[in-house]
Amino acid sequence: MTPGDPGGLGPELAVRLLAAEPRLFPGRLVIVGSLAALDMHQRRLGIESVYTRLDSLDDVSTLAPGVYGFEPETVKGSQPAPAECVEEGGRVAGECLQTSLDILNRGDAQGLVTGPLCKSTLMAAGFDFPGHTGFLAEGAGLAQDDVCMHLCGPKLRVSLVTTHLPLSQVAAEITGERIVHCLDLTCRFLEKLGVDGPVAVAGLNPHAGEDGLLGREEIEIIAPAVKQAQRLGLQAVGPLPGDTVFHLAACGEFGAVLAMYHDQGLAPLKALHFSDAVNVTLGLPFVRTSVDHGTGFDLVGTGRASTSSLRSAVTLASRLVSGKARSG
Amino acid sequence: MTPGDPGGLGPELAVRLLAAEPRLFPGRLVIVGSLAALDMHQRRLGIESVYTRLDSLDDVSTLAPGVYGFEPETVKGSQPAPAECVEEGGRVAGECLQTSLDILNRGDAQGLVTGPLCKSTLMAAGFDFPGHTGFLAEGAGLAQDDVCMHLCGPKLRVSLVTTHLPLSQVAAEITGERIVHCLDLTCRFLEKLGVDGPVAVAGLNPHAGEDGLLGREEIEIIAPAVKQAQRLGLQAVGPLPGDTVFHLAACGEFGAVLAMYHDQGLAPLKALHFSDAVNVTLGLPFVRTSVDHGTGFDLVGTGRASTSSLRSAVTLASRLVSGKARSG
Repeated sequence: MTPGDPGGLGPELAVRLLAAEPRLFPGRLVIVGSLAALDMHQRRLGIESVYTRLDSLDDVSTLAPGVYGFEPETVKGSQPAPAECVEEGGRVAGECLQTSLDILNRGDAQGLVTGPLCKSTLMAAGFDFPGHTGFLAEGAGLAQDDVCMHLCGPKLRVSLVTTHLPLSQVAAEITGERIVHCLDLTCRFLEKLGVDGPVAVAGLNPHAGEDGLLGREEIEIIAPAVKQAQRLGLQAVGPLPGDTVFHLAACGEFGAVLAMYHDQGLAPLKALHFSDAVNVTLGLPFVRTSVDHGTGFDLVGTGRASTSSLRSAVTLASRLVSGKARSG
Repeated sequence: MTPGDPGGLGPELAVRLLAAEPRLFPGRLVIVGSLAALDMHQRRLGIESVYTRLDSLDDVSTLAPGVYGFEPETVKGSQPAPAECVEEGGRVAGECLQTSLDILNRGDAQGLVTGPLCKSTLMAAGFDFPGHTGFLAEGAGLAQDDVCMHLCGPKLRVSLVTTHLPLSQVAAEITGERIVHCLDLTCRFLEKLGVDGPVAVAGLNPHAGEDGLLGREEIEIIAPAVKQAQRLGLQAVGPLPGDTVFHLAACGEFGAVLAMYHDQGLAPLKALHFSDAVNVTLGLPFVRTSVDHGTGFDLVGTGRASTSSLRSAVTLASRLVSGKARSG
């Protein structure tokens, strides 16, 4: 687990969650982050340390089950500025993510749970990625387009064809190849989860283009991609109107929705699941789940932020790495 | 009330609703539509006529409270094809809408409740509008941009800056003038409803542009428009990220959300309020509410379609025309 920006909500939520449920993750859970940030919140909240400090990650794969804390050399001595968005926070978050990738790439860990980081300070600190997904894809030797952002809620599950793009650029980025790849990743993920039902593909335009009256992408790109996915044996349907497909999926008609762009998928998902959805990156060679909220600098220390998204992220990662998703 | 396409769900839902609640609308409610369609559903369902037939609309403003039915000359003898989408249905829907506009324009009625129509048959029948809104705006002597589509649910209320546009054209249509006008209409509507709280303006881009990283429209167009609205005394805030603003509004933090485009606003609205939201046209010289669903040709006669959106549309129209919205 990387708590993300040391000044954000990540360290506080990790401490509060693991103090309340020390065995939430039944295997080896190593927090790679600013231990000073964790310790500060523990002192503030008057709770015992939730982790055992590791001085090295050499033997990480042989540790007994439990919660461990490790601070990379480059992070030692860093003094976190709680509730503040500063470049040093971006640096610490980036260094810890890089260290975690090293463990994952050498096979000493099977999954990564990430807390929220601040995109602008991460970039200011020289890590040239607008967020976790690109960082992890490149770190795993993949292109950004090889992976797919997925939001997994109790009732609604949503994958995204495009993510952090200006709206005016979305239409040009929608390709049949990308849709088929996202459908493939989403269908495989649903199978791991033990969730039935097809993946419904949302249209790009209002009313899924209304037979071409409101846009041609459904006819020229999306419908042919859905047909190709079906020929490949994938359970996919659509394109369906983006205003109603999420409701139908949440009612159980579909296993997931493939949304064309960020707000189309995330607005209904967060309307239904504000604090209990998990962000999952599909297509990486390891499991990666994340909280579904931001750094919330203004909430740090107030006790008002919920641990439930982090709890869901840890639980889902646990199910996925142990291969027990289907029975979980 | 115009039930919309005579072969769609409108006539069936009107009959079912008014049979169950004959005094739902406490004033004069005149159904302008194919009476053959209403009668067919009444016979099929074995219920007494829910309306008193009118042969003329000349004295409509002096009628006693109750439910009346009127069939324009041009619609008489038309045989509805239930559960079928045919051009004749578009013609009947268009003629009845035109007749209703005549009554409204001469001041003999204060509001209009519309059932669902089929855009393609309406256009095929020579009414060159892609839906109700443009038809009504032009009929009232207004431009399309003078009015604003609003979806009013029990918890979430959403106005739209743009509606039925291909997604690739949305960004180019966002103007400060339009945003300020929609904010003005929405604030005045909330006041009539007796709903407090500012109108939150959604960003166009993911994360409301994230300080320009993901698009410049928030900085160049939306934020200045919100400031201008505030200078005009309107209660407006934003731009706020489109993925979370609808959840916050549904929790009561805002009175309504101004969404930039169709699916951004309607996907979260329908996720929360699938069958109990009302479509309201703001900016017309009369009250206009509408069901929030389509013609549902495949559901006609199955008994599976809910009357709840039509019920909400009638109730809200009643509150708005009687000026009792605040106390209702």
